[in-house]
Amino acid sequence: MSNQNSKSTWRSRLHEIIYEADTRAGKAFDVVLLIVILLSIAFVMLESIRSIDRAYGEVLNIAEWVVTILFSLEYIARIITVRKPFKYIFSFYGIVDFLSTIPMYISFFIGGGHALVAFRALRLLRVFRVLKLARYLGASDMLSSALKASRAKISVFLFAVLILSVIFGTLMYLIEGAESGFTSIPISVYWCIVTLTTVGFGDIAPVTPLGQLIATFIMIMGYGIIAVPTGIVSAEYTSQVNKGAPKAPKKPYPNTHLNSQSCHNCHADKHKDNAEFCYNCGYRLHHDV
Amino acid sequence: MSNQNSKSTWRSRLHEIIYEADTRAGKAFDVVLLIVILLSIAFVMLESIRSIDRAYGEVLNIAEWVVTILFSLEYIARIITVRKPFKYIFSFYGIVDFLSTIPMYISFFIGGGHALVAFRALRLLRVFRVLKLARYLGASDMLSSALKASRAKISVFLFAVLILSVIFGTLMYLIEGAESGFTSIPISVYWCIVTLTTVGFGDIAPVTPLGQLIATFIMIMGYGIIAVPTGIVSAEYTSQVNKGAPKAPKKPYPNTHLNSQSCHNCHADKHKDNAEFCYNCGYRLHHDV
Amino acid sequence: MSNQNSKSTWRSRLHEIIYEADTRAGKAFDVVLLIVILLSIAFVMLESIRSIDRAYGEVLNIAEWVVTILFSLEYIARIITVRKPFKYIFSFYGIVDFLSTIPMYISFFIGGGHALVAFRALRLLRVFRVLKLARYLGASDMLSSALKASRAKISVFLFAVLILSVIFGTLMYLIEGAESGFTSIPISVYWCIVTLTTVGFGDIAPVTPLGQLIATFIMIMGYGIIAVPTGIVSAEYTSQVNKGAPKAPKKPYPNTHLNSQSCHNCHADKHKDNAEFCYNCGYRLHHDV
Amino acid sequence: MSNQNSKSTWRSRLHEIIYEADTRAGKAFDVVLLIVILLSIAFVMLESIRSIDRAYGEVLNIAEWVVTILFSLEYIARIITVRKPFKYIFSFYGIVDFLSTIPMYISFFIGGGHALVAFRALRLLRVFRVLKLARYLGASDMLSSALKASRAKISVFLFAVLILSVIFGTLMYLIEGAESGFTSIPISVYWCIVTLTTVGFGDIAPVTPLGQLIATFIMIMGYGIIAVPTGIVSAEYTSQVNKGAPKAPKKPYPNTHLNSQSCHNCHADKHKDNAEFCYNCGYRLHHDV
Repeated sequence: MSNQNSKSTWRSRLHEIIYEADTRAGKAFDVVLLIVILLSIAFVMLESIRSIDRAYGEVLNIAEWVVTILFSLEYIARIITVRKPFKYIFSFYGIVDFLSTIPMYISFFIGGGHALVAFRALRLLRVFRVLKLARYLGASDMLSSALKASRAKISVFLFAVLILSVIFGTLMYLIEGAESGFTSIPISVYWCIVTLTTVGFGDIAPVTPLGQLIATFIMIMGYGIIAVPTGIVSAEYTSQVNKGAPKAPKKPYPNTHLNSQSCHNCHADKHKDNAEFCYNCGYRLHHDV
Repeated sequence: MSNQNSKSTWRSRLHEIIYEADTRAGKAFDVVLLIVILLSIAFVMLESIRSIDRAYGEVLNIAEWVVTILFSLEYIARIITVRKPFKYIFSFYGIVDFLSTIPMYISFFIGGGHALVAFRALRLLRVFRVLKLARYLGASDMLSSALKASRAKISVFLFAVLILSVIFGTLMYLIEGAESGFTSIPISVYWCIVTLTTVGFGDIAPVTPLGQLIATFIMIMGYGIIAVPTGIVSAEYTSQVNKGAPKAPKKPYPNTHLNSQSCHNCHADKHKDNAEFCYNCGYRLHHDV
Repeated sequence: MSNQNSKSTWRSRLHEIIYEADTRAGKAFDVVLLIVILLSIAFVMLESIRSIDRAYGEVLNIAEWVVTILFSLEYIARIITVRKPFKYIFSFYGIVDFLSTIPMYISFFIGGGHALVAFRALRLLRVFRVLKLARYLGASDMLSSALKASRAKISVFLFAVLILSVIFGTLMYLIEGAESGFTSIPISVYWCIVTLTTVGFGDIAPVTPLGQLIATFIMIMGYGIIAVPTGIVSAEYTSQVNKGAPKAPKKPYPNTHLNSQSCHNCHADKHKDNAEFCYNCGYRLHHDV
Repeated sequence: MSNQNSKSTWRSRLHEIIYEADTRAGKAFDVVLLIVILLSIAFVMLESIRSIDRAYGEVLNIAEWVVTILFSLEYIARIITVRKPFKYIFSFYGIVDFLSTIPMYISFFIGGGHALVAFRALRLLRVFRVLKLARYLGASDMLSSALKASRAKISVFLFAVLILSVIFGTLMYLIEGAESGFTSIPISVYWCIVTLTTVGFGDIAPVTPLGQLIATFIMIMGYGIIAVPTGIVSAEYTSQVNKGAPKAPKKPYPNTHLNSQSCHNCHADKHKDNAEFCYNCGYRLHHDV
């Protein structure tokens, strides 16, 4: 029993270091982790530049393998120290952590495609937890609930944009023809989206007067349509702000608890600072004796 | 009389399958319909790519004819099963359904232009009915009423944009001249709209210092003007949201009834779930005995 | 006296036809006027297209002279029928009407530059009066008062954008140099505005890594800055909407009077429908006996 | 003592002229200063245009040295007349004033890089003080507090945009490859930001169908994402407007005091018009006896 207890303590301490950012060791771990992630992204980027790859390819390759092995060890440690490992494995961060290591191993056997480790960029989202920025997390929460509320409306809008693009793309294909670069309907639809979203690469551009007239119409439409999602998000966000603090407008997020530790058992986070038990599964949070 | 009754029952059942998405058969019909529409759009797109047309042109042509005949049968069935066929024929969906089949038949006699069957994309709007997404339809309703309210203001705004484009387009034509690509006033006006809407293809660009100065002015104006329709839609949509739920802000659309069946007589839809008679013409909804 | 009276009646009738859109003759006059303006703009545009000018240049020239003489007669009639002609001459429409005719006469003596008659496009703003669209005029009024309220804030914003453009333009000039097209600081500042406003012609584009890094920064800044004027106009417009109808939100503009006649004496318009005297100068409105 | 007093008076008067815009001399000084700043920016711009530099390079160089010496004298005068010179030196305007003169001196020894005097553009921000525009400063204050409130949320948003750009940039690099211009991951990430912000230079554009499909996705995402910061600023600004004037909506900024003098001791500005002592350090404001 003493053995199990010591093991539990060892796991518990590792869990605290890896998953939480309140203790000194936990914060140091997260900062080091972020630096390693940034370095590894820099390595992949540098390797893709031909001149640098020729000169330092060998060094970069070794550096990347070192990072990959570190990440693999961290991934295993994360699985070991959680009570319900499958919950972690299939969580957002679990999948991101897996995708951050696996392309490198695949590239060992198949070759090519190891650039996919750029998925590591998603790991940078951990920065918010490390910085322990109450305002940032609160902001992010309000933002995401506003976006969630306007999701349905924005889907309707995007769907309408796509249907418009198919129809106007086909029209432009019929009017302009292959000489102006409108070689097929998919290309024309692509051009139509480029124009409607006001990106306007200019690799393809209408040449005939009628084509330019319709292009004008598409552009003005795109210029006006942008008002729709903006108006939706504005309205939803305003109502979120009003809902969130109806009586104490000076303290915007009074009830946001940002203790960064997470439950050993169910992996839920954002516990109250003085919480003793997980609000989600009732498991004791500071399980260290 | 029994004959007429049985005929009525047969028509009634077909009507339920084609127009409604509440029964199992009706839902299956609509899902199949959507898949066929998507397929037919894919066929037209693929046919427009030269390399694919050369290899599989024959197959695609047959596939398109099959789809066209299916759509024609559906169109006829829709006309037969409604009490007031002209109401359907001249409704939005009626016209779209007609435009989805007719270009193919025309192409049989004249040749060319059958790409216009891309109008079938509009039929995809039916997806909202099939998915029976209360939130989506509600969202769409609020959106369209907000857009309706801001229509007049946005017209004023678009009109001002057009007048500005004519004036600045003429100025640029006088300043830049034919060497920079501003070969005529219509082309210059086209360029001016491209710039004002911040699309910026770059196929035509000012070269003279004075031209670039005015272009700068146009761009900053365009960058600022976009704020106007956005502000209008924001304000209107916010007031729609506030109007829509003044006392129960938690349940956003309590009165939206989304029963997807439509009246056999007058084609009105969105009846209450427990409705026995059409709210529009008083015709009995479930006329099956 | 009877002579003066008849003269007054004659002038009064002409005034009614030219300046007002309530009577049948007045409306007909305005509609004809708008058609002539549209035609004359079309003539100038067509003349600027070389191939058309070669074939029909003679005809177009005559047509334009006819329009110019008609406009001159109208301009003189407008001056004669108003009591205070200078008020009209120096009003917005007075200046526009003058600028619509004068370039053609100048082109007679000097040659070239008659394309400036495109200023006639501004006369099209009269369309709002003709259509007598209560909603449109009300919309325009609310819009312009919202824009007036946010003018100061948008000036601050535009000023900041210009200063940013000068500084980043200079930086890009130093970094990129003449090879990439950044041949001078003014050109670089021009490019910076093209990028900041998200127009992005692409005639000039950074080539060096450092230049692209700064370009990235400018683009993200421009992408974010657009939020500022939009937010300002949204907020102002929302407060205009709330102010305009605090107690009867269903009838948006209950006090908008849209009688299109204007005072003979002081040229003020938008009188109440049952007004007998000008609200501005006290002059009798229907001065026909 | 009389000596110290007269010295104090002399410094006090100079302080009033240089730092304040309420007296006649102070206003004249600021107007002259602004004109000199504008001239000096024009000189730097003109010098960068090769053809002008060849013809008038000598004259422009002398003119710039004159301006630089004037600015140096002003900088010294500013340091002398403030009680706490270090507070000024490390304030925003202190640093800007320093950066406005130093590049010219450096260019004397090293050569090149004197174009950095374009930092003088930042000095133009003083225009708001000179014009003494109550509304403008009030507007700027409300704007900056709205921006301060939405800073955290916009950071979250920009961070997400950057992470998305890295991931999609890498994807595009893998799909398109070097032939289409996607020569390395950093270049691809640069292209991704160009596209996401709807700038769309077109110097690099996808060529493969799969690349164009992903580009379409990026563009629509960018077109939709813009709604987020706009919505945030709208909501924050609306709440600022509501907070600022809850009971007297007609007089927007009743409590903004815009006396342009600043304290001799602590450099704080925006004192009440009838203030006798600095609200920040208690130092007597009109210390002239």
